[in-house]
Amino acid sequence: MFFVINPKPDIMWKEENNQLIRQFEFGDFISAFSFMTRVAFAAEKMNHHPEWTNVYNKVEIRLSSHDAGNKVTDKDRQLARKIDELL
Amino acid sequence: MFFVINPKPDIMWKEENNQLIRQFEFGDFISAFSFMTRVAFAAEKMNHHPEWTNVYNKVEIRLSSHDAGNKVTDKDRQLARKIDELL
Amino acid sequence: MFFVINPKPDIMWKEENNQLIRQFEFGDFISAFSFMTRVAFAAEKMNHHPEWTNVYNKVEIRLSSHDAGNKVTDKDRQLARKIDELL
Amino acid sequence: MFFVINPKPDIMWKEENNQLIRQFEFGDFISAFSFMTRVAFAAEKMNHHPEWTNVYNKVEIRLSSHDAGNKVTDKDRQLARKIDELL
Repeated sequence: MFFVINPKPDIMWKEENNQLIRQFEFGDFISAFSFMTRVAFAAEKMNHHPEWTNVYNKVEIRLSSHDAGNKVTDKDRQLARKIDELL
Repeated sequence: MFFVINPKPDIMWKEENNQLIRQFEFGDFISAFSFMTRVAFAAEKMNHHPEWTNVYNKVEIRLSSHDAGNKVTDKDRQLARKIDELL
Repeated sequence: MFFVINPKPDIMWKEENNQLIRQFEFGDFISAFSFMTRVAFAAEKMNHHPEWTNVYNKVEIRLSSHDAGNKVTDKDRQLARKIDELL
Repeated sequence: MFFVINPKPDIMWKEENNQLIRQFEFGDFISAFSFMTRVAFAAEKMNHHPEWTNVYNKVEIRLSSHDAGNKVTDKDRQLARKIDELL
């Protein structure tokens, strides 16, 4: 199944240290990595790539715009919305 | 979204020419290919690989056991069930 | 390793039935599927998708332009070149 | 192309804070992510998963055995060797 186990309303995207950050938790590694594959396609199409970390069923995505001096820009918010649509 | 648009009850797995065959239709190419990625992991883990064809949002999977003389075996039914669970 | 075992000069892209067709053979399923992942990104970026079939370490890619009446067009030749660059 | 631009002999795997760590740099995001896909298959087959971070063309992989108290074990060294073979 392709679901997020724990997207509690209070742990959606947060802005911290000039990054948009969200943590995702899946049922297993394959679900987590398949989600990453979908995000990878979306990111490549926008030519805007996340900094992200995965360990087993957990994925943390951090978005900021390097070419804008490492600030959160509209492009980051747009990718964040896109990612949310993939869930 | 990760859904199958058209899994009509009457077009589930069918057995034909010594193959288990099922067609899948997704919302777009990325959804179809992400599904294939999940199936690829499942197949590799079972060390039992499908013959499959993709065009845009459509995937056709054909299962048979080459080492058993190209017949449908329990291994094929097992992989078919596994694939259905991924949807 | 990410190599094509058997890209004999005489089995490169051929044009047949209004399709550009090429067969690829890899060392194993994972190599074949990883290649497909790269092609998938290229195809999605061009918004031009192949019809392709995989079984274990073999991949056959068939290119034609559906919106041009199922003929081989420049877009197909462009994607074919792109795919060759990925090898 | 599927190559590592910068695998300098002096920046191979190092052991640090009870983790085996290696950084990889590729030509672009797609090359980096395709490499990750291959590693994902290898990890899933061994049922031993990395902690890893990607940003654009860079991948950092950190290996340790959580079930052995977050120490570097033979399983980590085995996965590290496997990953090196994929390059």
